Amino acid sequence: MRILILGGGGFLGQKLGKTLADSGSLRGEAITQIGMADVVSPAAIKARVPCKSYVVDIADRAAVDKIIENGWDVVFHLAAIVSAHAEEDFVAGMRTNFFGTFNILEACRAELNMPIVVYASSVAAFSTAVPQPVEDWTATVPQTSYGTQKAVGELLLNDYSRREFIDGRGARLPTVVVRPGKPNKAASSFFSSIIREPLQGEPALCPVELTQEVWLASPRSTVENLVRCAELSQDALADNRVISLPGLTVTVGEMLDALQAQGGDEARAFVDHDLDEKIQGIVRGWPSKLVTTRADALGMIRDGSFAEIVKQFVEDELGR
Amino acid sequence: MRILILGGGGFLGQKLGKTLADSGSLRGEAITQIGMADVVSPAAIKARVPCKSYVVDIADRAAVDKIIENGWDVVFHLAAIVSAHAEEDFVAGMRTNFFGTFNILEACRAELNMPIVVYASSVAAFSTAVPQPVEDWTATVPQTSYGTQKAVGELLLNDYSRREFIDGRGARLPTVVVRPGKPNKAASSFFSSIIREPLQGEPALCPVELTQEVWLASPRSTVENLVRCAELSQDALADNRVISLPGLTVTVGEMLDALQAQGGDEARAFVDHDLDEKIQGIVRGWPSKLVTTRADALGMIRDGSFAEIVKQFVEDELGR
Repeated sequence: MRILILGGGGFLGQKLGKTLADSGSLRGEAITQIGMADVVSPAAIKARVPCKSYVVDIADRAAVDKIIENGWDVVFHLAAIVSAHAEEDFVAGMRTNFFGTFNILEACRAELNMPIVVYASSVAAFSTAVPQPVEDWTATVPQTSYGTQKAVGELLLNDYSRREFIDGRGARLPTVVVRPGKPNKAASSFFSSIIREPLQGEPALCPVELTQEVWLASPRSTVENLVRCAELSQDALADNRVISLPGLTVTVGEMLDALQAQGGDEARAFVDHDLDEKIQGIVRGWPSKLVTTRADALGMIRDGSFAEIVKQFVEDELGR
Repeated sequence: MRILILGGGGFLGQKLGKTLADSGSLRGEAITQIGMADVVSPAAIKARVPCKSYVVDIADRAAVDKIIENGWDVVFHLAAIVSAHAEEDFVAGMRTNFFGTFNILEACRAELNMPIVVYASSVAAFSTAVPQPVEDWTATVPQTSYGTQKAVGELLLNDYSRREFIDGRGARLPTVVVRPGKPNKAASSFFSSIIREPLQGEPALCPVELTQEVWLASPRSTVENLVRCAELSQDALADNRVISLPGLTVTVGEMLDALQAQGGDEARAFVDHDLDEKIQGIVRGWPSKLVTTRADALGMIRDGSFAEIVKQFVEDELGR
């Protein structure tokens, strides 16, 4: 079982790599190699199995062909230009998210082993332009270029799977909170900052209203669900290879309450408010309530509460 | 008002060109030029306004740039590789339907006048893999490559419009029946053949069961609705530029009854039955019942009955 993680340098890619390496097997087979690929060489992960880093820009077709032709059994595709970045720079988003995904699928099509492709889509493929709550058969009418590019990838994943070029599984990820590390160009970045920074004695800015809701999931449940997507039998997904992962609907106010419960008044006081119309506009366009009947039936897991997610962050990232 | 019709050599493109030329105006402005473009030079249409034919393969980015940079006010994009053809030849479908549409949108993005783009999508963007009937907010989970490529075009049209690169309007066309001329590689081609050929004393083969339903519309209502899409105000479409056009749900048996009513027992006897699993499979995957609330509210028209459609064919195409 040889596994490639595209976007392996990102925090989800790193966690996924470690989880797979620790487990040592996938789909009942021993993992013999893990490839970690990203635009900048991914950090090496501690693994009992051989693990190799690759530098690849997925927008570069030849580079993608070269890495895919190594013959992987499972390819996790987590590589993307994030939401606010793709909104700012249309061409960059199209290059990486639209053509990058196309390049990966085309390279897989050229392989003879019909690799499993686990594709990270996003709740941003949906929007509040359609009746809420979003259900399994709700139209993807995204209101960002990022969401558009993700939704295009979903369509291609389905068609390439139907034609048996690949064995695709797509997962629409909720906003993943609490992300470790530094803020990034995702419009959702602040959802993590307002918890992560205060718990480390640093200030954070909240650019949206306290009543703003978000559809979120923890890094732990997200990684676990990506693995479960790879584990699914092909038949389980039938005519639609893409599912919306389970999440929690939480308001920013509730998030700050959980921060206060964990870190006290002191932590709460580190959060300042400064409304950013651009961020608020993007975030308001994402649905916050999803009914995930298919994912639930397929055994995907859901976090218990946001308070639990904050405790996990303290445990996993702050080592307390 | 300068209008370009991509796919102007097809039967819908020709009818649309004639309709616009006869009317002489669009959106309250006099039409000063009509361009008709296709892979093979479109037949000249009789018009009171200057009309020019262009040869362009929309998969050729440079050729598309060259024609679009003539500065059109309205671009109708009807060019496509049809359903069974795109199913047979994956690469041809991706070239023309996926990249071709991308090329057109990119060329329009480079223009400064934010052209109106009327995009012909298809009921094939939907499928029977989702709960029926198909409503305005039902997910596009196509079960053909053609439908996939059309649905990708819908997503791009929306995003290019939201970003104000173009002023897009997408229309999901029902199966258009009765088409004049020769059969083509569309899986739906026989829906026209079983009416057209017998009414001209020629045999026709029906490859599906009599109980098979189809979502159809006449050439007349389809052309009228494409014009109405161009006439709509931008605001009317709001956050979703794509609508499903009204149609009729008719079984093949009912179609043959209408044939008999028009052409007598003699015409009906020209239809032979020979089940084709491939065609039946594709057609069965298309939804036959759509609720078109948005299109109805936007003033799109619906045919009265299939019997009327057959009468129109006799009038328009056989000159009786």
